[in-house]
Amino acid sequence: MALTSRLQHSVTANALRSYLAEFISTFLYVFAAVGASMSSRKMMPDGTSESSNLVGVAIANAFALTVAVFVAANRSGGHVNPAVTFGMAVGGHISIPMTILYWISQMLGSVMACLLLRITTVGQHVPTHAIAPQMTGFGASMLEGVMTFTLVYTVYAAADTKRGPFGAIGPLAVGLIAGANILASGPFTGGSMNPAYSFGSALAGGSFKNQAVYWVGPLIGAAIAGLIYDNVVFPDVRNPPDSLTGIAEGGV
Amino acid sequence: MALTSRLQHSVTANALRSYLAEFISTFLYVFAAVGASMSSRKMMPDGTSESSNLVGVAIANAFALTVAVFVAANRSGGHVNPAVTFGMAVGGHISIPMTILYWISQMLGSVMACLLLRITTVGQHVPTHAIAPQMTGFGASMLEGVMTFTLVYTVYAAADTKRGPFGAIGPLAVGLIAGANILASGPFTGGSMNPAYSFGSALAGGSFKNQAVYWVGPLIGAAIAGLIYDNVVFPDVRNPPDSLTGIAEGGV
Amino acid sequence: MALTSRLQHSVTANALRSYLAEFISTFLYVFAAVGASMSSRKMMPDGTSESSNLVGVAIANAFALTVAVFVAANRSGGHVNPAVTFGMAVGGHISIPMTILYWISQMLGSVMACLLLRITTVGQHVPTHAIAPQMTGFGASMLEGVMTFTLVYTVYAAADTKRGPFGAIGPLAVGLIAGANILASGPFTGGSMNPAYSFGSALAGGSFKNQAVYWVGPLIGAAIAGLIYDNVVFPDVRNPPDSLTGIAEGGV
Amino acid sequence: MALTSRLQHSVTANALRSYLAEFISTFLYVFAAVGASMSSRKMMPDGTSESSNLVGVAIANAFALTVAVFVAANRSGGHVNPAVTFGMAVGGHISIPMTILYWISQMLGSVMACLLLRITTVGQHVPTHAIAPQMTGFGASMLEGVMTFTLVYTVYAAADTKRGPFGAIGPLAVGLIAGANILASGPFTGGSMNPAYSFGSALAGGSFKNQAVYWVGPLIGAAIAGLIYDNVVFPDVRNPPDSLTGIAEGGV
Repeated sequence: MALTSRLQHSVTANALRSYLAEFISTFLYVFAAVGASMSSRKMMPDGTSESSNLVGVAIANAFALTVAVFVAANRSGGHVNPAVTFGMAVGGHISIPMTILYWISQMLGSVMACLLLRITTVGQHVPTHAIAPQMTGFGASMLEGVMTFTLVYTVYAAADTKRGPFGAIGPLAVGLIAGANILASGPFTGGSMNPAYSFGSALAGGSFKNQAVYWVGPLIGAAIAGLIYDNVVFPDVRNPPDSLTGIAEGGV
Repeated sequence: MALTSRLQHSVTANALRSYLAEFISTFLYVFAAVGASMSSRKMMPDGTSESSNLVGVAIANAFALTVAVFVAANRSGGHVNPAVTFGMAVGGHISIPMTILYWISQMLGSVMACLLLRITTVGQHVPTHAIAPQMTGFGASMLEGVMTFTLVYTVYAAADTKRGPFGAIGPLAVGLIAGANILASGPFTGGSMNPAYSFGSALAGGSFKNQAVYWVGPLIGAAIAGLIYDNVVFPDVRNPPDSLTGIAEGGV
Repeated sequence: MALTSRLQHSVTANALRSYLAEFISTFLYVFAAVGASMSSRKMMPDGTSESSNLVGVAIANAFALTVAVFVAANRSGGHVNPAVTFGMAVGGHISIPMTILYWISQMLGSVMACLLLRITTVGQHVPTHAIAPQMTGFGASMLEGVMTFTLVYTVYAAADTKRGPFGAIGPLAVGLIAGANILASGPFTGGSMNPAYSFGSALAGGSFKNQAVYWVGPLIGAAIAGLIYDNVVFPDVRNPPDSLTGIAEGGV
Repeated sequence: MALTSRLQHSVTANALRSYLAEFISTFLYVFAAVGASMSSRKMMPDGTSESSNLVGVAIANAFALTVAVFVAANRSGGHVNPAVTFGMAVGGHISIPMTILYWISQMLGSVMACLLLRITTVGQHVPTHAIAPQMTGFGASMLEGVMTFTLVYTVYAAADTKRGPFGAIGPLAVGLIAGANILASGPFTGGSMNPAYSFGSALAGGSFKNQAVYWVGPLIGAAIAGLIYDNVVFPDVRNPPDSLTGIAEGGV
């Protein structure tokens, strides 16, 4: 497609509906994820180290991300995450103009969720992702990158129409891998795997320390996941996984 | 339809079965939700602030709401919540007489669950939804409203027959968003999103303080969710989501 | 059918496979349920009142019951519970001779799971279901009966072939309602809803105190659930839910 | 097949893709499982006995194993576990050369996940599976063997194409039984059921004490599970469960 046609493609009615779907789903996800962190801190203000807190936060992430993907899946593809959209762009499943508008929608949804929580709870502190003292920024970014690899690999599998009957639980699989990875990494990096989530909470919490950690690793991990899924493990020239593209074909 | 025909429609055999289905499902859900709160308090009477309590309550809500929607879905639509029914009425999916009878069934189910718990546990206190001291009633209602928006938006998605294979996990998605929102809002508003639940526990617990918070926000949030889903994100003139209506067409 | 033919029906190859399937599934479920209680007690021997213990036990029950129903569903119907089988018998879905052989298989599976846990853990105490001091036996049995009602009502819904796409998550719904009810009733009655589970742990634990509570309520609740589901909420003369019968038609 | 043809079969492009799929899935699973144990220990270094820790670890295992099976299911069959592959080999569903290459892929995935966690967390201790002081090695191996029996029995059920609509939740059932068994056995044997997991954490943690316990029991349990499922409970000469074989027929 020529650039003009791509730009036109990105402002059709269905494209605009996709951006709104991404905004709503990212809002829904970040609201639950950040809210669960705030609830934990309110109940136990002295320490972030309590184990059942992490269980609660991980479950909130798993449940909310499942739903966020579920409600947007047959409109926008249910990315809910700039890293996922970036991986799709690298794999050629979504155009550059649409990628940018997906990112803006996701960032706005995350920021609005964090600000709403801060306002309605009357200035309760919004926690941000942080890395453990003994870790390096490189190690933390690598950990986030590896986890984002597994997340995006799962997103590709969930969107793959060749899954057969197991395909029904696709959005659930995406939510569960997020929850599992947060349980694995909570006290080390916080377990973000999602630059929009990290950016929104950093903006509302007023601290952009180590923000790069939550962008560099996840974007690289997402790109590698898409390339390996499409080209190495499940290559298929005849039936490319169309549902991965941002906009559902033929209306809905 | 004329008013008379609507009234007749609301007392057919299938309509009466729908009211009973709503009664049973709301009973089942509120029993588990309120029972889990009572269990937590019995095990740890000194504080509502223990983190693992909130995890238990959120999981009980998520699991029970999934089941409540599942068992009623192909009879009454599985609303289990006056706010959901209100959203459906605003969207024109259910008539006013039926809306009122759904509400009555849901309220009765909730009240009976709370009273049964109080009687069988020999007067154990029934906890009611409460808002954090620093919060305003407006902020609390807004928080409940936003959460009910995401819940009802998910109910619409779950009932949408255009979901494809992912449609199988619809009732689970409804349960999971409730659980995630409770983890996000537990120490702030308690995470009701359901006026019948708040009313039943208030009646059995003997305190209607802040009851309006749990009605105003959720009803507004539910109405907005339905309108946005139907008209903005997933507009479809040809195939309106029929399964959203209270009564399944053609018997069952 | 005449009595002779019913008796013959109960010893066919497929019937014997069904009894084995019930034995394996009940073993699998009770092993995880009782094992989780024993794990909790080993980790925190001084109190049964710790909240995260109940969460762990409820999750173990929910997960294991889902699997127990899943693996047996298309062979024996996946009852895994004498109360469920009793409800099916009252509803006419399974013959009396088969009911008795199902019960024996379930009891043996439960007893063997409890004894294996006791032996391999070198005499670790096997905990039994117990009721809170302030409660009456009648109240406890009523609570167990109401919870078994919701469980068996869900089993009927899960086995109903008219569920449409939601039918896929049937076994999960059965597991989730068990988990939710245990969170609601843990410190009050322990949340059994299953006479085989209560009997097996009582035998291995050496205490049959209040055993009747875990039989009377659940059997009554199960019978009522089946009658209401079949005759009131989802009556259907033309297509009786065949998959509820113990033995799958036509071999498998 | 002759030996030569079997060896050729094990190095086709699809076979190599299967080994990579097993590597990625085992990496994904062990990363979350071991990471969750490390997170728990970092948050509460003084004791492994805290109950909410076990809940977090069990949930991480359940969630991650579900996803690991899901993403690999229609490429390699989603074994993610040498015991599962061994059971498939005993049942004749996978050839000996492929079994060996599956094992190598699984071991490499597990070792790499453990080493990555150790490096990125800057030398945080990698916990290994251990048995309770009062238990014998024989009892521990028996417990692990019984749990692996239930796990592999569930894997067979999940891969059985005769499951009907319930088949959709197959990978979830595999994850849930792992989570339930870990809750049942955490303080007794750690709940491995997976020799690759035990080997990888032992290598990275530097202790091979009781390693045999996590190989002997699971391999025996897995073999028995496959034989009983195929030959006793669900015998079917006409339609052997093809999806159990490592490589999907006809490309994908």
